[in-house]
Amino acid sequence: MSSTYGTLFKLSTFGESHGPAIGVVVDGCPAGLSFDTDFIQHELDRRKPGQSRITTQRREADEFEVLSGVFDGQTQGTPIALLIRNTDQRSKDYGHIAEQFRPSHADYTYQAKYGSRDYRGGGRSSARETAARVAAGAIAKLLLAQQGVQIQAYVSQVGKLKVEKPYQEMNLALAEENAVRCPDPEIAEQMFQYIDETRKRGDSIGGVVDCIVTGVPAGWGEPVFDKLHAELGKAMLSINAVKGFEYGSGFAGAELYGSQHNDEFYTDADGRVRTKTNQSGGIQGGISNGEDIYFRTAFKPVATIMQDQDSVDVHGQPVTVSGKGRHDPCVVPRAVPIVEAMAALVLADMYLRNQVSHVEKSKAEFSKI
Amino acid sequence: MSSTYGTLFKLSTFGESHGPAIGVVVDGCPAGLSFDTDFIQHELDRRKPGQSRITTQRREADEFEVLSGVFDGQTQGTPIALLIRNTDQRSKDYGHIAEQFRPSHADYTYQAKYGSRDYRGGGRSSARETAARVAAGAIAKLLLAQQGVQIQAYVSQVGKLKVEKPYQEMNLALAEENAVRCPDPEIAEQMFQYIDETRKRGDSIGGVVDCIVTGVPAGWGEPVFDKLHAELGKAMLSINAVKGFEYGSGFAGAELYGSQHNDEFYTDADGRVRTKTNQSGGIQGGISNGEDIYFRTAFKPVATIMQDQDSVDVHGQPVTVSGKGRHDPCVVPRAVPIVEAMAALVLADMYLRNQVSHVEKSKAEFSKI
Amino acid sequence: MSSTYGTLFKLSTFGESHGPAIGVVVDGCPAGLSFDTDFIQHELDRRKPGQSRITTQRREADEFEVLSGVFDGQTQGTPIALLIRNTDQRSKDYGHIAEQFRPSHADYTYQAKYGSRDYRGGGRSSARETAARVAAGAIAKLLLAQQGVQIQAYVSQVGKLKVEKPYQEMNLALAEENAVRCPDPEIAEQMFQYIDETRKRGDSIGGVVDCIVTGVPAGWGEPVFDKLHAELGKAMLSINAVKGFEYGSGFAGAELYGSQHNDEFYTDADGRVRTKTNQSGGIQGGISNGEDIYFRTAFKPVATIMQDQDSVDVHGQPVTVSGKGRHDPCVVPRAVPIVEAMAALVLADMYLRNQVSHVEKSKAEFSKI
Amino acid sequence: MSSTYGTLFKLSTFGESHGPAIGVVVDGCPAGLSFDTDFIQHELDRRKPGQSRITTQRREADEFEVLSGVFDGQTQGTPIALLIRNTDQRSKDYGHIAEQFRPSHADYTYQAKYGSRDYRGGGRSSARETAARVAAGAIAKLLLAQQGVQIQAYVSQVGKLKVEKPYQEMNLALAEENAVRCPDPEIAEQMFQYIDETRKRGDSIGGVVDCIVTGVPAGWGEPVFDKLHAELGKAMLSINAVKGFEYGSGFAGAELYGSQHNDEFYTDADGRVRTKTNQSGGIQGGISNGEDIYFRTAFKPVATIMQDQDSVDVHGQPVTVSGKGRHDPCVVPRAVPIVEAMAALVLADMYLRNQVSHVEKSKAEFSKI
Repeated sequence: MSSTYGTLFKLSTFGESHGPAIGVVVDGCPAGLSFDTDFIQHELDRRKPGQSRITTQRREADEFEVLSGVFDGQTQGTPIALLIRNTDQRSKDYGHIAEQFRPSHADYTYQAKYGSRDYRGGGRSSARETAARVAAGAIAKLLLAQQGVQIQAYVSQVGKLKVEKPYQEMNLALAEENAVRCPDPEIAEQMFQYIDETRKRGDSIGGVVDCIVTGVPAGWGEPVFDKLHAELGKAMLSINAVKGFEYGSGFAGAELYGSQHNDEFYTDADGRVRTKTNQSGGIQGGISNGEDIYFRTAFKPVATIMQDQDSVDVHGQPVTVSGKGRHDPCVVPRAVPIVEAMAALVLADMYLRNQVSHVEKSKAEFSKI
Repeated sequence: MSSTYGTLFKLSTFGESHGPAIGVVVDGCPAGLSFDTDFIQHELDRRKPGQSRITTQRREADEFEVLSGVFDGQTQGTPIALLIRNTDQRSKDYGHIAEQFRPSHADYTYQAKYGSRDYRGGGRSSARETAARVAAGAIAKLLLAQQGVQIQAYVSQVGKLKVEKPYQEMNLALAEENAVRCPDPEIAEQMFQYIDETRKRGDSIGGVVDCIVTGVPAGWGEPVFDKLHAELGKAMLSINAVKGFEYGSGFAGAELYGSQHNDEFYTDADGRVRTKTNQSGGIQGGISNGEDIYFRTAFKPVATIMQDQDSVDVHGQPVTVSGKGRHDPCVVPRAVPIVEAMAALVLADMYLRNQVSHVEKSKAEFSKI
Repeated sequence: MSSTYGTLFKLSTFGESHGPAIGVVVDGCPAGLSFDTDFIQHELDRRKPGQSRITTQRREADEFEVLSGVFDGQTQGTPIALLIRNTDQRSKDYGHIAEQFRPSHADYTYQAKYGSRDYRGGGRSSARETAARVAAGAIAKLLLAQQGVQIQAYVSQVGKLKVEKPYQEMNLALAEENAVRCPDPEIAEQMFQYIDETRKRGDSIGGVVDCIVTGVPAGWGEPVFDKLHAELGKAMLSINAVKGFEYGSGFAGAELYGSQHNDEFYTDADGRVRTKTNQSGGIQGGISNGEDIYFRTAFKPVATIMQDQDSVDVHGQPVTVSGKGRHDPCVVPRAVPIVEAMAALVLADMYLRNQVSHVEKSKAEFSKI
Repeated sequence: MSSTYGTLFKLSTFGESHGPAIGVVVDGCPAGLSFDTDFIQHELDRRKPGQSRITTQRREADEFEVLSGVFDGQTQGTPIALLIRNTDQRSKDYGHIAEQFRPSHADYTYQAKYGSRDYRGGGRSSARETAARVAAGAIAKLLLAQQGVQIQAYVSQVGKLKVEKPYQEMNLALAEENAVRCPDPEIAEQMFQYIDETRKRGDSIGGVVDCIVTGVPAGWGEPVFDKLHAELGKAMLSINAVKGFEYGSGFAGAELYGSQHNDEFYTDADGRVRTKTNQSGGIQGGISNGEDIYFRTAFKPVATIMQDQDSVDVHGQPVTVSGKGRHDPCVVPRAVPIVEAMAALVLADMYLRNQVSHVEKSKAEFSKI
């Protein structure tokens, strides 16, 4: 049941990289939401392979079919099933690794756990599964947009190339205007060249994606185990190739004094309680405080490289693994919409959960039924 | 339902900092486990306040009572309820903040979410709740010990003071021999002095806890959303004051090339599949590969400081918050057993979940019933 | 995790019949609910042993302690833990069955499942656990009362003695005025004598409890698997000694034609959509339709009787089991508050779940945060 | 999230009666199970419409496509998605009820809950959804067959026509040899004529399905809330048109004395602990005891009849509803495979859950990893 995520806004994804199809069932989306298919397709297109020469050349239309849950253009409160057919599977690319364990892939661990594996393109462990998350995340974004919540991620680091400017000083919309998805055009160009050179050398490189969430009111998130940032962390860490997560001051916060780190409160002109600083990243005690939520997610370099590597086969015999197939030299440009989708799924769930947190709300609510 | 954690090894904690008691119900611990009360008390004592002058002077015996689930010294497969009475609550210390929002505490967010809050010592949001996690984690450790799994955490950073040595080059047992819980005696002494000076200035400081898990066989962890490192990340991020999590190469991995980062496989003298390096941190595709699992957790400085801070009250009026009460100037020494406990809870759950992953196991299993 | 119940209004019970205590943790009760301890005690007293000579003579005060989740007389949205100490455990009464399997008890099945068991008074399988459900159910009743929902159960059958009148033709309040909890005073007296004679013969007898829920608006309950009546059925069947559940027309409905069974709709004077008849028992498609909800629950005779019975011991050797201990000759009088409590827990959960079913509600809701 | 069922063997169904497709995702089926597509199709064919003149004439091939989770003819431990296209939707049959509430259908309650509904053939509330359950149940049956568990349901009652013989005295295999699925050929013929006459009168009739499960070892099922019979009850009550559930002695057990009802233990020739009688229906304390498990499920008459009925429309105005479309005059013949499927899903889940109930099992299990 580990392919199911969420408490109230629940999704269940399925599908292997080279099987007939992948898809997702969203169970728990409220009824009465306008279902914008163009927007969902737009989000899928942002994640789609083959967008530029620095992404995999695998060609997938990634067009989806709505199988259920939508009627007269509106969600019905019933499960929404979305299907994406796999069209460009060159399974023959993988015959050679049917018995080999590719270094830093999930080949060995799946074999150890299940006693077998669908080796074609990594099967279930392939990042292809994330297309289903992006589709479901797009529905969550539609639900959140009604509440005034916006989510914007961008590439802040590729290898050692970093964006130093704080997000407030950039026009994040610019991120969508280059192949790297970095809002600083100069650094974006450097990153593009760097990734392209890495690709030419048959190597891959890691990176970092930053994400900013605006418009979340105070009160979203749950105490103790399901803290908002804990759920965001799990969601990000569940994305292929992720190695780390931090929010607000993050690891740098460990070096600060309380007198430097604390966010003092004040009341703004509109009478709203605000904080002077935002080391908390918009979350205190696991619950949103109304400030911007921001977090960073670190991605390792893609494991598939076009170089020979030592490994062993399923019999434990030494083998040389030669890179084949079509892969991204750097995942972060395509990871941006995935990070946004997972953030949207977490926030949609927390938004719904918050509605049953207080009995006065319940009573008010009840009176309208 | 956010105070409940786990799929099969499930716990539910309860209690406020200054209420009559805190406790935990563990539902899903297998029957037939020898219940070692001394070990559980030992773990609680490691987390207990008042261990040295660099920890809070609140005095809590933290003695627990077993209310259910154990008979003839063995677990019965029924819920195990553990109760810890609160004994040293100086609630009067908190009367002054009944209407104030302490900076970077959860006062404001709980008020915003629930419309009220138990302000005494932070109520439910207090780290006192973690005593219940440590008690439950101790049971998980007993279950894991049978499988040869050991968990050892230690303080690797306080402010800017860092342990540079890799864990393999230190005797981690030394961590328990100093008040800071750092396995490098020299740095431990520097950290102690640094924390103590910070305390005297009425300030607080952050830090980092590293955790090493040995003896986990290949195959633990679940694909897609419940990846082993995703669950570890959520578990760590759910601990009070945590701002970041990374495993294996972590954020540093984002700067590497695939050719540097990949862990090549080989077969060792015992015919076991191993990796030459361990950038993966013992986890590939969310499933353990049999190597050591290691991860790092960043803690912010404690929010309570003995200095005046600007804030607002529940009416939005400006107030000056003055630090009172008894608090840790640095949480990481006491966080070590909490990190271990949460890791144990995640691994115990994954251990049980892995037992139903493969039908051949099921059949073998069945034959023994 | 089978001692946990509910999706949003979640409870976790613990405790054995002769252990130190039993209790429950309610996680998910909304904040801001006035916590009426007298009412909760009143509900526990209704279930309490020793109410008359036709109930077990075990003496339990069944007084509860609130350990968490309540502050200033109100729920805080945090887990509510309630503790009930066991005071009158005559464990010596059970020494003789330490190695015996009592017919139609859970002794053998627990032993087969877990390899051991707490044999004292049935341990975890004892109906004593239901006191924790009644305490949690009382909180659910407080939440439902705010919504105008009332739950009233009563004994409709003991052995072959049955109440023939439909519930609409009786004053259900009278049920609480006799020891049997039957609203028909004449039949109640017959039932009392019948149970008492059965008791004197050292035997036990079964019965049926009917339950009526009024004030539930249209829209509670979820499609497909979590239908309102499916959850009610599971809840009732989870009560000790229950053998059957039916709602609305029930088993009798299987003998009817659609033309007899269908409930035609009309609009009443207040413009509310109603049904002329109520074979549906207030539920259509698993969702409440605004009519009275009613269902029936069948209880087998108590397994413990004061007569010798053939059985085997843990070694498979034949033994004679002689009834000892203090037991109810008929469970239904004390089952009435348990049935009500379980119904309340199901309905409280469905009430909360319904609040996130529709996005328009969400938007309205949101505007108030 | 109410379209998701199961704790470890988890399924999520989707689809409306007249949407493009219905389907199911099974998440939690162990790896290494031989995937028998012919058997799954065979089970779907048993539920398929148009099998005889006493079932609906809607023509659906009910052929399924495997979208994921199966490789080289074996399950992979990853989600198994099955898709069934809807082919014969005469939506025009339903235009007339777009604004009408059909008596005893879910039209009104869905409208009240969600503010809108897919009225075509009942949308999500249609029994068409059960095809997805039958497909998932067939996988569960394959898993259970490995453990020697067999499930056989049959029609025991149509209207007032009842099978009086106990199941032990019939050849249950005969049930599949007639259109009614009753193992008593004579009564089957009477039932067929009775249903056919009812159909000709444009009416419908209810019935009862009995189910027998053999081969379940002692130990399956969980204490307290997830008792085996409680889960079976919920599963049966979740099937469209079900009004009641009883197991073992059921409602009749309420009329018995303990001395009549108790099942005395003995040790059989093979040294196995058995019971002389089986009033318990193979379940004691919610856990299987190794005897046959049997239970009965009552179905109301189909709500759609070919007669005029009074009702109201979405505006509350009185209307006359005239039966159209193609429907079963009696659901029980086609309900037989659905009852079996739901029983299989419950038992597969309990089988997996039982494997983590005892630490000795865990240790033995572990040694094989």
